[in-house]
Amino acid sequence: MLTANELQQRVSRMQEMLTGKGVQAALLLMPVDIYYFTGTRQNSALWIPADGQPMLLVRKSLSRARQESPIVDIRPFPSGKELSTTLGEAYLTVGMTFDAVPVQQQAYYSKVLPGRSFVDISMIVRELRSVKSPYEIEQIRFSAAKLSAVFAEVPRFLKAGMRELDLAAEIEYRLRRSGHEGYVRMRAFNQELFGGLAVSSGATSYGFFDGAVTGKGLSSASPQGASLDEIKANEPVLVDFAGVYNGYIVDMTRIFVIGSIDPELQRAFDVSLDIQEAVRRAMVPGAICEEIYKLAATMAESAGFGGNFMGMPGEQSRFVGHGVGLELDELPVLAQGFAMPLMAGQVIAVEPKFVLPGKGVIGIENTFVVTDQGGQRLSDLPDLIVAV
Amino acid sequence: MLTANELQQRVSRMQEMLTGKGVQAALLLMPVDIYYFTGTRQNSALWIPADGQPMLLVRKSLSRARQESPIVDIRPFPSGKELSTTLGEAYLTVGMTFDAVPVQQQAYYSKVLPGRSFVDISMIVRELRSVKSPYEIEQIRFSAAKLSAVFAEVPRFLKAGMRELDLAAEIEYRLRRSGHEGYVRMRAFNQELFGGLAVSSGATSYGFFDGAVTGKGLSSASPQGASLDEIKANEPVLVDFAGVYNGYIVDMTRIFVIGSIDPELQRAFDVSLDIQEAVRRAMVPGAICEEIYKLAATMAESAGFGGNFMGMPGEQSRFVGHGVGLELDELPVLAQGFAMPLMAGQVIAVEPKFVLPGKGVIGIENTFVVTDQGGQRLSDLPDLIVAV
Repeated sequence: MLTANELQQRVSRMQEMLTGKGVQAALLLMPVDIYYFTGTRQNSALWIPADGQPMLLVRKSLSRARQESPIVDIRPFPSGKELSTTLGEAYLTVGMTFDAVPVQQQAYYSKVLPGRSFVDISMIVRELRSVKSPYEIEQIRFSAAKLSAVFAEVPRFLKAGMRELDLAAEIEYRLRRSGHEGYVRMRAFNQELFGGLAVSSGATSYGFFDGAVTGKGLSSASPQGASLDEIKANEPVLVDFAGVYNGYIVDMTRIFVIGSIDPELQRAFDVSLDIQEAVRRAMVPGAICEEIYKLAATMAESAGFGGNFMGMPGEQSRFVGHGVGLELDELPVLAQGFAMPLMAGQVIAVEPKFVLPGKGVIGIENTFVVTDQGGQRLSDLPDLIVAV
Repeated sequence: MLTANELQQRVSRMQEMLTGKGVQAALLLMPVDIYYFTGTRQNSALWIPADGQPMLLVRKSLSRARQESPIVDIRPFPSGKELSTTLGEAYLTVGMTFDAVPVQQQAYYSKVLPGRSFVDISMIVRELRSVKSPYEIEQIRFSAAKLSAVFAEVPRFLKAGMRELDLAAEIEYRLRRSGHEGYVRMRAFNQELFGGLAVSSGATSYGFFDGAVTGKGLSSASPQGASLDEIKANEPVLVDFAGVYNGYIVDMTRIFVIGSIDPELQRAFDVSLDIQEAVRRAMVPGAICEEIYKLAATMAESAGFGGNFMGMPGEQSRFVGHGVGLELDELPVLAQGFAMPLMAGQVIAVEPKFVLPGKGVIGIENTFVVTDQGGQRLSDLPDLIVAV
């Protein structure tokens, strides 16, 4: 259970980071950020002064926010005129998450809070949220157990001739009944995802989604995930789903096949397991994110699959893992250009994958937590190509 | 099918509106806005000069954008240094949708496009998108037929003792197999929705969602929609779902009951039908949105349900209908404070609902298009409380 004590620790860490950056207070507007610090996701704004108690201002629903959150100071949202005195006139440098807050919102607060300067604290919030507490790690482990149970059922309903969409629907139905909350939160402005991907060999086409595989989807309005393509025997079926329970996301991928798999795909799969293990071993505090990516890319290259790693030739993503938690695209990212060191407690979905045009997509994905002994695995399901 | 001709008409209307407001060009960043004008939803930015041809700049996937969109000028996303000359130095007043674009994005474009002033064109884009073409109206009618077919099946699987979640899962499964795209796009910063609501009498609790009913949901991280509450006989079961096909959303609500309904709930339901019909008749071009809301609220008041209209006493929403299209929360809104006149072709989900504490939630919802003869209904399913 999310305790008042844990929330207090999160707020305290935030206050230390604000103080370290010379920011006097944070005004958080993103629902998921507010949930992280309060335990309630209502339509609200959260004020965290560097030197005092947080204040939650609620538009809707005040009563539900009060029921759910142990935060002491929860109030109805004040009018624009009252806001400045409610928050206190002494706080002149105010942090906001400019990565996600729309221009109109920031303009409103600039108007009603005259004299303040607003600074971007997106990276502070994202970095803080990237390090998971034991409670959060247990939540993700719980999500992994739920998701694994549904993955284990796939052989019961995967049949040749069914559409990718039918397979997706069977998986989504079971996830949902097991308590999956449905909504997979993503932070990046250009991203969105419904549940996950259940795709067959035709999914070597590409799309906007920041991953190795996008899927054709059902229309150009929703160009990702399952399509109406029929699943055939002897082709790899990639099932890449997010499990979301109590807000916490786990991300896993397994390959299924009706019949048997092409030897080159099998070889690429074996390479993905080798990469996963090398990445896992490298996931210690202090390791540099992009170095881990380079290690993975070099292994793919050495195995002769460099041009297939993490996407179609020409449309390759330059990452091999991404943080997960309350959002699917959290920090850190094991990617080109991410020079930051890993921290103990960060949770990362590691997903070495290959796209072989004309043959299909193949790979593995599990979720790990960074520890002194390397990545500790949170998703317990054998790393096998499951033949049906 | 979405034709090049229809896209050209949308762009031309946009250009007229930009010219009318003295804006020289629009730089659109929201995926759903870009889809509206191009027919492709990739990770991209769309430039529409008031006096020339649109240009689509694509990060991922360029090849898919080219396959899907008839827009002639589709290019790889230029570097920050190149962007200014790519777009043209002569355009000094540039419109952006500040309602949805994050501060970081706007800051980036301000930096790489020096000398330009950026203005908010959110209302232009939203107003333009609110008026649907015959093609779009057919899309929404198609979505309504699909959603209605699933609603019609509810009596086959609704059983006393099942959890709200089980009912939701059965509905979502059938919607998905029929081609529902899963993702229900919402524009408002604080909103999110998974599929819809399948809730029983316990759903008289409240939440952040901008509607009459929120549902308890599965956790405080996802406090909306179906919960683990068991559905009992003789209580109203409210099924309020969005159907999303080819990107277009229809919104409908029906009430089911295992057994029979409380007479007061039945009376409130009858009032909701009267309100729906009065609103429908009032939905002519030129009618003022908030006047229609007031008409509805007055009817609720006269019937003795004023304190129950559109929410719990104390947490009532002050609207009775909302635009739908590519997003669930489009313009216009039949709400307090919306003084704008209706336009022919606008599509509105009308949803008079009542929350009776201790008894349950009840009401109706259908989707209509504004015509000279009043609202023309797009969702064909009888307006009955369906007893199982």
